[in-house]
Amino acid sequence: MPLDPQAETVVSALINVPIFAHGNVRDIRVRWALEEIGRPYRTELYEGMQPRPDEYRQWQPFGQVPAYKDDQIQLFESGAILLHLGEQDDRLLPREPQARADAIAWCFGALNSVEPMIMRLATLDIFEAGQSWAKEARPSAVRTIEGRLQRVAEALGEAEWLGDRFSIADILMVTVLRNLDHTDILSAFPTLSAYKQRGEARPAFKQALADQIDELGEPAKIPEPA
Amino acid sequence: MPLDPQAETVVSALINVPIFAHGNVRDIRVRWALEEIGRPYRTELYEGMQPRPDEYRQWQPFGQVPAYKDDQIQLFESGAILLHLGEQDDRLLPREPQARADAIAWCFGALNSVEPMIMRLATLDIFEAGQSWAKEARPSAVRTIEGRLQRVAEALGEAEWLGDRFSIADILMVTVLRNLDHTDILSAFPTLSAYKQRGEARPAFKQALADQIDELGEPAKIPEPA
Repeated sequence: MPLDPQAETVVSALINVPIFAHGNVRDIRVRWALEEIGRPYRTELYEGMQPRPDEYRQWQPFGQVPAYKDDQIQLFESGAILLHLGEQDDRLLPREPQARADAIAWCFGALNSVEPMIMRLATLDIFEAGQSWAKEARPSAVRTIEGRLQRVAEALGEAEWLGDRFSIADILMVTVLRNLDHTDILSAFPTLSAYKQRGEARPAFKQALADQIDELGEPAKIPEPA
Repeated sequence: MPLDPQAETVVSALINVPIFAHGNVRDIRVRWALEEIGRPYRTELYEGMQPRPDEYRQWQPFGQVPAYKDDQIQLFESGAILLHLGEQDDRLLPREPQARADAIAWCFGALNSVEPMIMRLATLDIFEAGQSWAKEARPSAVRTIEGRLQRVAEALGEAEWLGDRFSIADILMVTVLRNLDHTDILSAFPTLSAYKQRGEARPAFKQALADQIDELGEPAKIPEPA
């Protein structure tokens, strides 16, 4: 669906970020969820390489994207936003208590037990790549990720999605796994690779990706390490 | 309240972990929440320095603690468990939509925008302390934490808690901040220090801490780096 400049649902997003972030800025998670349920939204765009305006902190205390608002509430953190959308539409979050609990547990699992380890490696490989110690720090970061992926692969088994059917947990896990795309780590986990590809093949994901990349505009230069 | 061996609410916890983990294993978050609402619970204890039994993965796919079950559902991930408890008792999670949204956003914020940075430093300082590069990697890890703490301090302002009143968001943020106790980083943020102390002064926290430490038993040796 096309963005709707009159929509009540608003998502913050960026322009001008380095090329490695194209398709991975976290607003893609919210766009994807909104596409899955066909809910119109519009974006508020911020410069990626500049500090956010002070007033943005009232909406997103860390200055990150995405932040979200609709006719009921405003929210920050992609996990919290997806949970809110899931509560509004059972296509994103099942209603049966144990299925709902499983999906929510996997949301937190993706964000707290998998993403931090993957973002650690992404930071090493991108922002800290010029540091003398980055190469030495890498093997243990990779081993930690492999340990976590092994657990996710075992839990997924031969299933299509982390729960009985597609949910916000899969939006989070698939977008978390995409942060390994600059490596070949996932190729050692064929069922997880296939799982990620299943997510990326969904029309809602494709539309979200196209819209994010379209709005991001020209890639910016990678910043110097702080 | 004392643990109740007949309770329907069950939390997994550990025995025999190194001393730095005493008071910080994540089951303390669930114990704290249960103490706040006076809900009886019992624990299932696992050896901290051994792989969990295979069947435990059916309950907690990553093999971590805490896992949780009650008469309705089973769950893993401390954030998901606290959210479930908050849905069951409004002393842990307000019902007014925006207040509820704020609390949930801060739950994810604590777990995804603060904890990963702090756990990165804790890993460097404890498990990777013997690595040649750990010292060089430390300054950027500290700077990242300081940036996040600055944002949390600004959002907290002069308030007592992250929302209008105490909630699961504070249980998560306070226990996340406790993982800095081996450093003096928090002392540069006096309002955050006071916030953490306010959390630690609650009777429910004190009881949870005492029960965790009591059950952990004798400290184990720090493991060799993998």
